[in-house]
Amino acid sequence: MYTDRDYMEIALNLAKTARGKTNPNPLVGAVIVKDGMIVGTGIHRKAGEPHAEVHAFNMAGEHAKGATLYVTLEPCSHYGKTPPCANLVKNSGVSRVLVATLDPNPQVSGRGVQILKDAGIDVEVGLLEEEAKKLNERFFHNMTTNRPFVTLKYAMTLDGKIATHTGHSKWISGEESRLEVHQLRNEVDGILVGIGTVLKDNPLLTTRLPNQQGKNPVRIILDSHLQIPMDANVLNEEAKTIIVTTTEANPKKIAELEKRNITFIYCSKNQQGICLDEMLGQLYKHGITDLLVEGGGEVNASFVREGLVNKFIIYIAPKILGGRHSISPIAGEDVDLMELASKVKFDSIERVGEDIRIIAYPVQGETYGKH
Amino acid sequence: MYTDRDYMEIALNLAKTARGKTNPNPLVGAVIVKDGMIVGTGIHRKAGEPHAEVHAFNMAGEHAKGATLYVTLEPCSHYGKTPPCANLVKNSGVSRVLVATLDPNPQVSGRGVQILKDAGIDVEVGLLEEEAKKLNERFFHNMTTNRPFVTLKYAMTLDGKIATHTGHSKWISGEESRLEVHQLRNEVDGILVGIGTVLKDNPLLTTRLPNQQGKNPVRIILDSHLQIPMDANVLNEEAKTIIVTTTEANPKKIAELEKRNITFIYCSKNQQGICLDEMLGQLYKHGITDLLVEGGGEVNASFVREGLVNKFIIYIAPKILGGRHSISPIAGEDVDLMELASKVKFDSIERVGEDIRIIAYPVQGETYGKH
Repeated sequence: MYTDRDYMEIALNLAKTARGKTNPNPLVGAVIVKDGMIVGTGIHRKAGEPHAEVHAFNMAGEHAKGATLYVTLEPCSHYGKTPPCANLVKNSGVSRVLVATLDPNPQVSGRGVQILKDAGIDVEVGLLEEEAKKLNERFFHNMTTNRPFVTLKYAMTLDGKIATHTGHSKWISGEESRLEVHQLRNEVDGILVGIGTVLKDNPLLTTRLPNQQGKNPVRIILDSHLQIPMDANVLNEEAKTIIVTTTEANPKKIAELEKRNITFIYCSKNQQGICLDEMLGQLYKHGITDLLVEGGGEVNASFVREGLVNKFIIYIAPKILGGRHSISPIAGEDVDLMELASKVKFDSIERVGEDIRIIAYPVQGETYGKH
Repeated sequence: MYTDRDYMEIALNLAKTARGKTNPNPLVGAVIVKDGMIVGTGIHRKAGEPHAEVHAFNMAGEHAKGATLYVTLEPCSHYGKTPPCANLVKNSGVSRVLVATLDPNPQVSGRGVQILKDAGIDVEVGLLEEEAKKLNERFFHNMTTNRPFVTLKYAMTLDGKIATHTGHSKWISGEESRLEVHQLRNEVDGILVGIGTVLKDNPLLTTRLPNQQGKNPVRIILDSHLQIPMDANVLNEEAKTIIVTTTEANPKKIAELEKRNITFIYCSKNQQGICLDEMLGQLYKHGITDLLVEGGGEVNASFVREGLVNKFIIYIAPKILGGRHSISPIAGEDVDLMELASKVKFDSIERVGEDIRIIAYPVQGETYGKH
């Protein structure tokens, strides 16, 4: 015997299969149940394609009459690339609708539910709400802040090092962890590093997945003095590249790079360097909803200090490196007292191959930059 | 229906209740089973007190005849503070004996079992052997190396820092983790720090447990130039203290400290400072079978580099400290390449209050000092 909760879980599990494919849209799953049987299922697979409800009602057909709809996010109430789902649901003949969570967009939140209620449909909101919000943490953050969701990722040894004193870091983590990181790159819109990492490692920052065509995120390089070498790997044609710099940058070099289809974003400077919050606002306008920050200790520290990290993904390898001058994952300005550390909350701690993966979220208002 | 494995597990679980109390002896548990019922149980509680088998046979009395004995370590075959248990078992009337693991002491290993076999008793060795060896990892190490078992412990932030650039570290880990560390101090014979930690933090290095009289380990201070201040907390009378130094140390200061019942150990020097392997040999002769190393990054690095750590216990707090000059748990000489890191194997990863506790063991022959 399946319960409401079970059906909503099925809808959530369907939704998450499209992770990374729907940006800037949310992940949504829908299940229609009639007489104890699932008669319709749907997933929002990609921006521009039909919403989850449309697929589910197409499948259900006449069976939708008197049925119950389980949907992970409030049906939309506005005309976008597709007509509003709330109207579709209203006209479908379902008698009951369970919505995991309301739309986070303050402009429309609650309107879809109201359309259904006005039509006399029995509507309940909040079943597995926490799970539904976490599933769409990126979308919720986008809608409420107009900024990309920022994930900071690093891999370190068990004694907290990301490289030797010479900068050598290949490889800290094992094969399974590295594959996960490429999977993550495959899901985000943008990947950001500082110019220091470009100069030192000359990375490609592309997605390499075995037996699968990966999606390359936009490469974003923080380079306030435009030091990037013209033959840097990140300037190749494999993926789009945005350079974030200031108006002080050499206009001739900018012009040359623009000829090579490199996009420029100009930001003002603050004490730490480029104003990251301003940059995030601009990146969001460039369509970056989900940003992976892959360090350098100085860049990482700036994001942490300014309270701009939304999620930490940290791999710990079973190695002790030692070394007085080995490189730390988070550097930046020193603070004197331990209580000025930024607090986080561990979300999950799991083994990935020989490594450990820790996912942590910042504790609101507990960033030392805010003290 | 209990199986042989179940009874051996019970014996192992009994044994471990005496953890930290039996040094230099091993932890041993014994269970006697007759007709599907436990008729005798015993634990070795403390060095000098009866062995586990003695308690079990006292309880079993006449029921031992025809019974099965489950014992976590081979019954002893030699006269120590108590007569040999193998004789007791031989004369008890049991018809079957299951031994989890042989005695690690190469001088006597197998002799206890031989006595029983010669008496016509059915003896099986090896049930839950791995668990039994792990339970007595300290004792096995002692017997095979004549050195204390070295546990290196540190608590760090999620970005690998043990203190701010000023040395401030109170507190990194949460209350539950700190309580565990005091429990650990309560179980070991010795606790070691470098003089740097004494000068900077002036710790007591005693065991503080709530609602319980803790056992203070011997405090061991690595101090090659005998810089210790005469009013250092570790020189108080709350616990015994051993200072490890060299023959270059000031004889007058030594004499003064000896008047205050401070013990001295003199070691030769190597490139890293005091020869730690030599020191461990001497500490073992002073009755230290179980040594907790609580850092300083330089001292920790020396132990790692010389391949002398037997177990790592690492607490990770949900904090990001940052700071270019924050202090690392393992410092020491730099190496150029990541592949020169020492390899470890994660044993357990658990949450302790708000923190994470990772237990890891070095991978044999995978220490960079050995490359």
